[in-house]
Amino acid sequence: MISGDTIVAAATPLGFSGVAVIRVSGPLAFKIAREITHQNKTNDRVATLRTLFNLVGEKLDRGILTCFASPASYTGEDTLEVSSHGNPTIIDNIISTVCSLGARLAEPGEFTYRAFINGKMDLVQAEGVASLIRSKTLEGVREQQKIIEGQLSAEINKIRKTLIDLVSTLEYQMDISEEDLNVGVQISAQKVLKGLQKKALEMSKTFRMGKMLNLGVTVVITGPPNVGKSSLLNSLCGDNKAIVSPLPGTTRDVISAELILEGVPLVFFDTAGIRKTKNRVEKEGVSRALIQKKQADIIISVSDNPLEERDPVGDQLCVFVLNKADLHTEPAPKTVIHISCKNKTGIKELLLEIKNKLQIHPISSDASLLSTPRQQLSIKLCAEHLDRADELFTETGVELELLSLELRGGVEALDVLLGKTTPDDIINNIFNSLCVGK
Amino acid sequence: MISGDTIVAAATPLGFSGVAVIRVSGPLAFKIAREITHQNKTNDRVATLRTLFNLVGEKLDRGILTCFASPASYTGEDTLEVSSHGNPTIIDNIISTVCSLGARLAEPGEFTYRAFINGKMDLVQAEGVASLIRSKTLEGVREQQKIIEGQLSAEINKIRKTLIDLVSTLEYQMDISEEDLNVGVQISAQKVLKGLQKKALEMSKTFRMGKMLNLGVTVVITGPPNVGKSSLLNSLCGDNKAIVSPLPGTTRDVISAELILEGVPLVFFDTAGIRKTKNRVEKEGVSRALIQKKQADIIISVSDNPLEERDPVGDQLCVFVLNKADLHTEPAPKTVIHISCKNKTGIKELLLEIKNKLQIHPISSDASLLSTPRQQLSIKLCAEHLDRADELFTETGVELELLSLELRGGVEALDVLLGKTTPDDIINNIFNSLCVGK
Repeated sequence: MISGDTIVAAATPLGFSGVAVIRVSGPLAFKIAREITHQNKTNDRVATLRTLFNLVGEKLDRGILTCFASPASYTGEDTLEVSSHGNPTIIDNIISTVCSLGARLAEPGEFTYRAFINGKMDLVQAEGVASLIRSKTLEGVREQQKIIEGQLSAEINKIRKTLIDLVSTLEYQMDISEEDLNVGVQISAQKVLKGLQKKALEMSKTFRMGKMLNLGVTVVITGPPNVGKSSLLNSLCGDNKAIVSPLPGTTRDVISAELILEGVPLVFFDTAGIRKTKNRVEKEGVSRALIQKKQADIIISVSDNPLEERDPVGDQLCVFVLNKADLHTEPAPKTVIHISCKNKTGIKELLLEIKNKLQIHPISSDASLLSTPRQQLSIKLCAEHLDRADELFTETGVELELLSLELRGGVEALDVLLGKTTPDDIINNIFNSLCVGK
Repeated sequence: MISGDTIVAAATPLGFSGVAVIRVSGPLAFKIAREITHQNKTNDRVATLRTLFNLVGEKLDRGILTCFASPASYTGEDTLEVSSHGNPTIIDNIISTVCSLGARLAEPGEFTYRAFINGKMDLVQAEGVASLIRSKTLEGVREQQKIIEGQLSAEINKIRKTLIDLVSTLEYQMDISEEDLNVGVQISAQKVLKGLQKKALEMSKTFRMGKMLNLGVTVVITGPPNVGKSSLLNSLCGDNKAIVSPLPGTTRDVISAELILEGVPLVFFDTAGIRKTKNRVEKEGVSRALIQKKQADIIISVSDNPLEERDPVGDQLCVFVLNKADLHTEPAPKTVIHISCKNKTGIKELLLEIKNKLQIHPISSDASLLSTPRQQLSIKLCAEHLDRADELFTETGVELELLSLELRGGVEALDVLLGKTTPDDIINNIFNSLCVGK
């Protein structure tokens, strides 16, 4: 993405609505504000009702204009916000007039990119903005708000500062002495390192919950035909989403429904019963079911036969369910949840088991959770450097240069995480995941 | 709708976006602004970045708050606008916090209703707001902008004032004299009345174009199976929207596509070929085609047989088309447009014929167009009173009391139009047609 020029985009969803907001950011923003309103000046932060004109003086709309002078704006640049009527034709016309006055259409996430470039937020906070907008639950929203406010960044910066201090101390020792590290410094350095290793490990463990809050969980319901998979989906979401019939092979498309569990959005996928079939549509359904199963975070394996052998499904999380519990008298293994979709029994127990298997737990307000695979990767990379650094401390002493190199590696991993030295393609990926106008 | 209390709604479409705008209007608006931000004061019209809290002090979001003090706001009441992150969970939480501080959810159009109640606009202008937001073309937008600015209302008010002056003159004459109207006054009154009749008629005629701009035109393509109706739809919209095949009975659902002609949105509907069939799905398609045909503003009747007799379709507008012109050598009647979907010929001529039949013409910026059936009905009602008043002038003089009654009837029709004496159910209908948050 290029910065320095002036960009424009609608910041609200396209549609017919009371209000639409159009954002303009960059050096030309205020000049454009004056030109489209035929006024000589702009008032900082004062919401002002104005008629908007195009280049040939035709009226575009009446709307509220607000100017935010650099650096006290979202992007850090001069920014104009126009509240117009929520009509796509009007929005298009305002945007194209703004473009003919020297702005260009903003790419997705480009306003936040400029906030990042101008030091308004680091890369972890920018990821928080993207995740916040996508969050489907209050708990997810709260977690990302903490990240945007800088709570996670502060924790990362604390590790980074301790690491840098450690490197400085060690490199100072190398400078003043040709000999080995003195014992006092070595013991203290090792202690600091152990503390950092512990901290990195703890942080890394938060990703399981952070990821679930941010990206949700995919639950796939599988099993042979006619065991009641669609009935289970309907029971779970309290709806009549999937068509059920006593005929095996009723479900062919993959049907999904959503449920929130302690703030975690679970998406349940009902799939075709897996069996050999000659029906072309059903065959396609079975093949889609198998693909969906591979992408599951957790599988609900349904059967209606209490005597059936139930094998673990590779290394995927799996809950075994015996449906039609009302029809069975035989005791089934304890590892199996007994449910009856007909009588609505066992559903609560099933959800509890899913919650346990996924380790879904209430979030504390103290620590921030890692929420994106990128954050998790960087922290893991940092932790690996710390572990290798720790291994360098042997009974015969420590090779100072190697130690310094590993610790610097740890700092670099955090610098990439915070956006200080992040490659352009990663940065572009993050901002492109945002919507246009943010 | 009730006024006087405080209402709240999202003014932007629901979705995941950069920004959402929430509007609060009513006496509690500023108190709510202070309470959700934990601040002691609000600054009129100054956009201010604030953290928003719920009742128990948990953070809801960081957002921009702007207060608009009564009467200089859209509704005329104290109004608060909150720009939050465009996330449905956040929006819901802010709105429910605002509600627990004493506001209630706004009904559709309720902000504009308050603007109307508080004398910010009349009913014709309020209809303009609803039509503006729905407008699909620049020409439609411009027409409604003129109405919102009061151009149509001014024309109506001018007729109304002339009528009232006329009534006053006549009633003054009745008061001062027991005898018949003197000839001078009678001639002058008749002249004024003729002028008003002409004006009302002219205004009424603008409805044809105003309605098309505002509500669009339904064009239904009909004809026997396999004459190329779907191919014509595809040719018209330059797309591959409808499935075409050499088999008769390919189209069953009603397929539509849109095209803009001089600012008028034309929606073309492709329908099943009309024939007797035993196929259940096709039968349903034919029945839907017949229903669609009845709702058409204009019908394109397609045939591929140059010798076929083509009868007018009731009193509906109709264009006769001969498709597969490339295959025919026989001359067809001049009233039929020859097209070839295969060779893409004749489409321009067909559109021109549609334009002529519908009397679509460029709009002048001078006069406003009546745009809603309600506006048209009121003007017609007023015109009828004027016509009856005119008929009262006979060779033997004029019955002054009857004349006055008819003229007052004309004024009343305009009062209903402008919202001065409009029944509640009509008013509710108008505002309910607006979106929530406007």
